[in-house]
Amino acid sequence: MISKLIDRIVEKKAPIVVGLDPNLKFVPKHLIRSATDEKGETLEAAADAILAFNKSIIDATYDIIPAVKPQIAMYEQFGIPGLITYVKTVEYAHEKGLVVIGDVKRGDIGSTSEAYAIAHLGEIKIGETIHKPFDEDFATVNPYLGSDGVKPFVDVCNRCDKGIFVLVKTSNPSSGEFQDQIISGGAASEDTEDLDRLEGAEGTAATGRPLFELVADKVREWGSESMDGSYSNVGAVVGATYPGQGEIARRLMPHTYILVPGYGAQGGKASDLKPFFNKDGLGAIVNSSRGIIAAYKKEEYSSRFDEHHFADASREAAADMIIDITRAVGLD
Amino acid sequence: MISKLIDRIVEKKAPIVVGLDPNLKFVPKHLIRSATDEKGETLEAAADAILAFNKSIIDATYDIIPAVKPQIAMYEQFGIPGLITYVKTVEYAHEKGLVVIGDVKRGDIGSTSEAYAIAHLGEIKIGETIHKPFDEDFATVNPYLGSDGVKPFVDVCNRCDKGIFVLVKTSNPSSGEFQDQIISGGAASEDTEDLDRLEGAEGTAATGRPLFELVADKVREWGSESMDGSYSNVGAVVGATYPGQGEIARRLMPHTYILVPGYGAQGGKASDLKPFFNKDGLGAIVNSSRGIIAAYKKEEYSSRFDEHHFADASREAAADMIIDITRAVGLD
Repeated sequence: MISKLIDRIVEKKAPIVVGLDPNLKFVPKHLIRSATDEKGETLEAAADAILAFNKSIIDATYDIIPAVKPQIAMYEQFGIPGLITYVKTVEYAHEKGLVVIGDVKRGDIGSTSEAYAIAHLGEIKIGETIHKPFDEDFATVNPYLGSDGVKPFVDVCNRCDKGIFVLVKTSNPSSGEFQDQIISGGAASEDTEDLDRLEGAEGTAATGRPLFELVADKVREWGSESMDGSYSNVGAVVGATYPGQGEIARRLMPHTYILVPGYGAQGGKASDLKPFFNKDGLGAIVNSSRGIIAAYKKEEYSSRFDEHHFADASREAAADMIIDITRAVGLD
Repeated sequence: MISKLIDRIVEKKAPIVVGLDPNLKFVPKHLIRSATDEKGETLEAAADAILAFNKSIIDATYDIIPAVKPQIAMYEQFGIPGLITYVKTVEYAHEKGLVVIGDVKRGDIGSTSEAYAIAHLGEIKIGETIHKPFDEDFATVNPYLGSDGVKPFVDVCNRCDKGIFVLVKTSNPSSGEFQDQIISGGAASEDTEDLDRLEGAEGTAATGRPLFELVADKVREWGSESMDGSYSNVGAVVGATYPGQGEIARRLMPHTYILVPGYGAQGGKASDLKPFFNKDGLGAIVNSSRGIIAAYKKEEYSSRFDEHHFADASREAAADMIIDITRAVGLD
């Protein structure tokens, strides 16, 4: 599956993904009004408004972007109707030829992770009939439970040609609380010995390494079991807000695609992104959610686009992001 | 909310929770046949069979147990119909007076965790109308993203009188891969200084502590912001399969309720459970899933209960578990 994503990135010359995280406050009032007029102040009405919002944004951007990343929490908060909109969004994005990264951050003990992997990437048999419950192309995975929580996802990647992105270093302010803790005796593996110097120069303990590096080592190990061309179907999440850690992650996992959240609204700048990419110009895909789906509310675009033209503002914001990033990382 | 759970545990004299993790292979064939006869080999049929299965088990056990813990992954694998069965299971358990622990293991960056907290424990307003999307009483939470991924859940606990259980040391074989890594310079906080001796005796580095202890420190800190009687609404998950770590966790978090998975099918024994409890006989609640819901398939019960009497077998297994545990921890 990673080779399919890379093909789309190269074809569109756009190493970006649009995060479909439709908080209701981003949805223009006329869409909400039209839905509540029909269905009252119900979860169904909210879900309908969000589906209309998503479809307009997909229609306005699908020809210039390779992928979308719906964040399932934003749908789950509207209960079953919200999750129906999630499924319909995945389907609609697929109809338009987009790769879909389900930002679900699941992870559990082995048998339970297997159920999540089936839900989002796999198949389930009822009698002799096969169903694909959510059918995203990629899912994000939380590594806290270790290998037996991640391996069932890797198995499904191999069985159904899908991919995952494992959380390594997240973009949020408190991500360092556990992820940056220095592990004593966390010896570097052979092919990362050159990193010791890099870390030494950055002042971390010569004998210890932060937790996220151990997770990165594991991602490389898991990934070796699901190669698809030069890259693995097992990717990693590293936040744009931590370019130093991005550089380390890039070198620890040379064949791992990095999904980079945190650009834009969370504070990550295009100039921070170069360390996340390999010399071949590949290796990373940068997400923006609010910056694109709520572009019509930003000063930059609000003077030219009113809320009835929110999707046009999203297209322009996506185009601007592509220029901003390809220039900064030398892909233009 | 924790005081409500404790009341039920004391009233029933049963520090246990029944895990409703209905893998289709646990559901008796006659229930599956009856559902597929009506709805074909569809996800809806599977979801109907599971709902009938859950209701029978709840009917057969609700008067002797305080709580159930549906594992959402097992429902998510059946897509939207599966999640509808999850919601109906939560509702039915509530009708029968049971406390419901949603085993959802969610966790994300701040704004996204807020959406998950709203989905499972909170409320969302559409216009002037308030909805409670999933409405469990407790949810399990993954701490990998740090405080800003957990705090939105704590806020909802305070606003809506709900509770959470944060993963500290999970029951699975590979949980130590990251959770047991020794953090260098992870100094013990003042009120846990006595633990240094305990750890020293167990051979861990005198200057370092495993990651799960740092998570336990944070759980205690987060929990101090949501006290409800002698215990906090912020609980912890520590697996029965690791009684040594259970003892440490118990002492690090004196006012934290511990949800203990891993008893039974995963290998945890009643004799391992004592360290998880406080001297007041409270402080822990032990989960069993397969051991109870699939009791009719176990040698112990299969000679007396055929698959048409699966729910009676579950009742007997729950009663046996209560005796086993209360005896072992000195509560009988």
